[in-house]
Amino acid sequence: MKIAVAQLNYIVGDFDKNTETIIQQIDKAKQLKTDLIVFSELSVCGYPPLDFLENKDFIEKSNQSILKIAKQCKGITAIVGAPKINNNPKGKKLFNSAFVLSDGVIQNSINKTLLPTYDIFDEYRYFEPNTEFKSIQILDKKIALTICEDLWDNQPVENSFAQTKLYTKSPLGELKDDYDLVINIAASPFSISQEDIREQVLIDNAKKYKKPIVYVNQAAANTELIFDGNSMIINAEGEITHQLKTFEEDFYLFDSENLNTKQNIKQKKENTAQLYQALKLGLADYFRKMGFKKAVLGLSGGIDSALVAAIAVDALGKENVVGILMPSKFSSEHSITDAEDLAKNLGIKHHIIPIKDIVNSFDNSMFEVFKGTEFGIAEENIQARSRGVILMAYSNKFGFILLNTSNKSEAAVGYSTLYGDMNGGLSILGDVYKTDVFKLCHYINREKEIIPHNTIVKPPSAELRPDQKDSDSLPDYDTLDTILRLYIEKKDSLQEIVNKGFDIDTVKKTILMVNRNEYKRFQSPPILRVSTKAFGLGRRMPLVAKYDF
Amino acid sequence: MKIAVAQLNYIVGDFDKNTETIIQQIDKAKQLKTDLIVFSELSVCGYPPLDFLENKDFIEKSNQSILKIAKQCKGITAIVGAPKINNNPKGKKLFNSAFVLSDGVIQNSINKTLLPTYDIFDEYRYFEPNTEFKSIQILDKKIALTICEDLWDNQPVENSFAQTKLYTKSPLGELKDDYDLVINIAASPFSISQEDIREQVLIDNAKKYKKPIVYVNQAAANTELIFDGNSMIINAEGEITHQLKTFEEDFYLFDSENLNTKQNIKQKKENTAQLYQALKLGLADYFRKMGFKKAVLGLSGGIDSALVAAIAVDALGKENVVGILMPSKFSSEHSITDAEDLAKNLGIKHHIIPIKDIVNSFDNSMFEVFKGTEFGIAEENIQARSRGVILMAYSNKFGFILLNTSNKSEAAVGYSTLYGDMNGGLSILGDVYKTDVFKLCHYINREKEIIPHNTIVKPPSAELRPDQKDSDSLPDYDTLDTILRLYIEKKDSLQEIVNKGFDIDTVKKTILMVNRNEYKRFQSPPILRVSTKAFGLGRRMPLVAKYDF
Repeated sequence: MKIAVAQLNYIVGDFDKNTETIIQQIDKAKQLKTDLIVFSELSVCGYPPLDFLENKDFIEKSNQSILKIAKQCKGITAIVGAPKINNNPKGKKLFNSAFVLSDGVIQNSINKTLLPTYDIFDEYRYFEPNTEFKSIQILDKKIALTICEDLWDNQPVENSFAQTKLYTKSPLGELKDDYDLVINIAASPFSISQEDIREQVLIDNAKKYKKPIVYVNQAAANTELIFDGNSMIINAEGEITHQLKTFEEDFYLFDSENLNTKQNIKQKKENTAQLYQALKLGLADYFRKMGFKKAVLGLSGGIDSALVAAIAVDALGKENVVGILMPSKFSSEHSITDAEDLAKNLGIKHHIIPIKDIVNSFDNSMFEVFKGTEFGIAEENIQARSRGVILMAYSNKFGFILLNTSNKSEAAVGYSTLYGDMNGGLSILGDVYKTDVFKLCHYINREKEIIPHNTIVKPPSAELRPDQKDSDSLPDYDTLDTILRLYIEKKDSLQEIVNKGFDIDTVKKTILMVNRNEYKRFQSPPILRVSTKAFGLGRRMPLVAKYDF
Repeated sequence: MKIAVAQLNYIVGDFDKNTETIIQQIDKAKQLKTDLIVFSELSVCGYPPLDFLENKDFIEKSNQSILKIAKQCKGITAIVGAPKINNNPKGKKLFNSAFVLSDGVIQNSINKTLLPTYDIFDEYRYFEPNTEFKSIQILDKKIALTICEDLWDNQPVENSFAQTKLYTKSPLGELKDDYDLVINIAASPFSISQEDIREQVLIDNAKKYKKPIVYVNQAAANTELIFDGNSMIINAEGEITHQLKTFEEDFYLFDSENLNTKQNIKQKKENTAQLYQALKLGLADYFRKMGFKKAVLGLSGGIDSALVAAIAVDALGKENVVGILMPSKFSSEHSITDAEDLAKNLGIKHHIIPIKDIVNSFDNSMFEVFKGTEFGIAEENIQARSRGVILMAYSNKFGFILLNTSNKSEAAVGYSTLYGDMNGGLSILGDVYKTDVFKLCHYINREKEIIPHNTIVKPPSAELRPDQKDSDSLPDYDTLDTILRLYIEKKDSLQEIVNKGFDIDTVKKTILMVNRNEYKRFQSPPILRVSTKAFGLGRRMPLVAKYDF
């Protein structure tokens, strides 16, 4: 059987566009005499649709789109993902389904069994799990049609207070041996390390059940979530015979009878290169799908804004990025020159708008109320917030979207000003630790200096008071980031982190900073997710709570 | 059997405090010769614990607290709510459980079956559902011990695209008739109309199964969620024989053999009075539990800030609330006098900090970049954001928490400035429509004028440009709020709303405004939830998506 894998970039809720794209691929596949073409999970409506799924209109449009696609399926079978109304009198209103379309109609559908409801996933919020198991016949093949998590029944649950596996059911196990081929339609988001884990899960399934697997992901970013594509074909021996592109749309046609030899296996990119590509797609898709073209950001001369500017230029084009330099009386000479060098290297327009007069006017206006008090956080934040006002004024005036430049280390410990440098439509680096910010800058400079050398080597500073350095109030970034990873990603306790060789006071101080700054992160822009535990959607902490060890 | 209901106010994660409170009530109950005392759902750890449940430390502390409480249970049985580790090799790591404590140890436990995973609830994110059903023996009674949603198996699901009931299982039904009494420990949040619905659910269960029900809720606010208490006893005929206080801690001791006559049934408060009490508790608990004492807010002379100031004074005391008046060149005379009258009526301190010089300094600084452009949104927002900077400077300087004063109508249509009047630690009115803001002001003024008459009767205006009125850009608030309720709460489609008698262009315009401002609400402070669908935690919309009809 000739099977085509269509790895596409869908827009949530854009039924016209998604349907058109799907039909184009079906037409292309027909010309290539394809028997079966497979699209990814919830491809018709885009993933993740979130609470749009509670909207009747949304479901009706999805249903109409499926019928429209089905009409094109003559002489070919297509598998698309979409929500399906649950007609049982009890249970959630919808299933997360795979529809089998041929002869111009919906021939069959299979519902998702394992509904991820952890981290960024809320599928049980919307969907009733499947409880009936059957394979489906497509031409001469019996297909085990599964949806993403359905192959993850055996996933290890990382925790040390209970050795459980997450799921009680095994969809493939339920089918016994009654199928020739597994198809898995997925919407599997990227994170560093996810690619390896996912490959292993697919390989383990192929080996365990001794069947080939066709895995179809999307290549798209939707708000926080980045889907890396990397669709693949695995033979019954557990060998990857072909892998589709990373972070890009792709199309691959193969013969299911010919899966014996490895074909086109990509060289895996190293982590920093992958991270870079993920952030670039995340930024590019945010703009493209929202209909925005142009971005503005503050250039401090520091490494975070330099990195964001470089990614934005790559994603949007240098003519669509503007940098604004906003020196204060505490800004060092090199803040300006480094930022100017960056703008020159990137070829972007920049403006210099000093904030001294603005800060003075705030200080004068607050004088009566503040009199007798010392310079402190209030005055530091006035500077950061004055910059925030300037950037938003530029954004409002010219329709440029403000890019947030905070990194994950800062966001974690609250080393940032709410309504100041935390402003922005999208946070590019909010899930990237400072130590990875450095790696990304070296990656960008791998062939020539784009991010000025001095920006990379000078000690990080917020420059909100005289001679301020990050290291005055924070542990060095290697230590900080390691502690943060253990606390946030691994959910290690104080004692567990200390046992790994860290000073107890440093760990206590770090954990307290993380816990006490939940309120700031609550009001953060959406953050591109590239780790297994990003701030935002996938990490839900109560604000009003007692935090301690 | 003598049963005590302990309706308390717990703090999420404060195991020492919660344990102490629970033990005090047990001691009190012992002195009153109580056989059984019942606490609410997840009382040991506080509700909602959210992702703290993924933290080993948190679970260990919870377990230690249960054992500590159990030690006090000699000569008395107590039922407390807490997470329990799932020792099965498969499934989520935890159960949401009710622990039965007596003779100094844990005697028994029952796990929750129906795990609400919709709106603000994410219980399947953390908990494995129960699948084994049994009643438990306490002294001479067989008890059907259930947890909150377990009695909601028959709840109607509001939607018109599928007539399903939400759950496939009925925990009480599974017990057949093998029990004398139902106990339901709950964490059931307040919303206007929730009280009636909940009462009906409990009454329906009592009548259907012909058993008395002891329902125990908490009286507490935790960030967005407000729990109204209203614990109650219902006899086997479905009559409420006693109801505990609303929005307050309470304790009630009764004899399970004596449920034949109605006892102390409260007069139900009307909606506006309830709404007022809910907001007051929400504000008060946010401050008390975070260890904050003092609040600051901008007083514009308008109705929203006046209402928030009045609630804050009631919740925190007049000595703990400071108002800041920040007139601009567009502020009308009455903006100042109305705000001053309000401050006088409330007896609060206020400052006047004009923003003219600050706005001028922004305009001057931006002059080169903005030259040739017209006064517009950018300039309007500079004013709102300058006020935001002043309020946050005050907050940072003196440690006062900034109260956000935006209402739900504004938040819905984006009639507010991000990083300007959207600033704040907590949004008091973000789930209160403008028409209800008026009702609340009349309620506050029911005995004497607290909120100045002129503030209530003048046409609402943001005063960001000459002679601006809300009605220039928005439908009248009666119309707007009705359309918003249908779209947001009822999830009606464009056509359904139009069919209810609204002008199609007005409805289209309104829906577009709601959809296009998701990005602003994404960065909103937490909002006290008082409706069935508040912005925030319980409403999850994708930002990057195509929105239309």
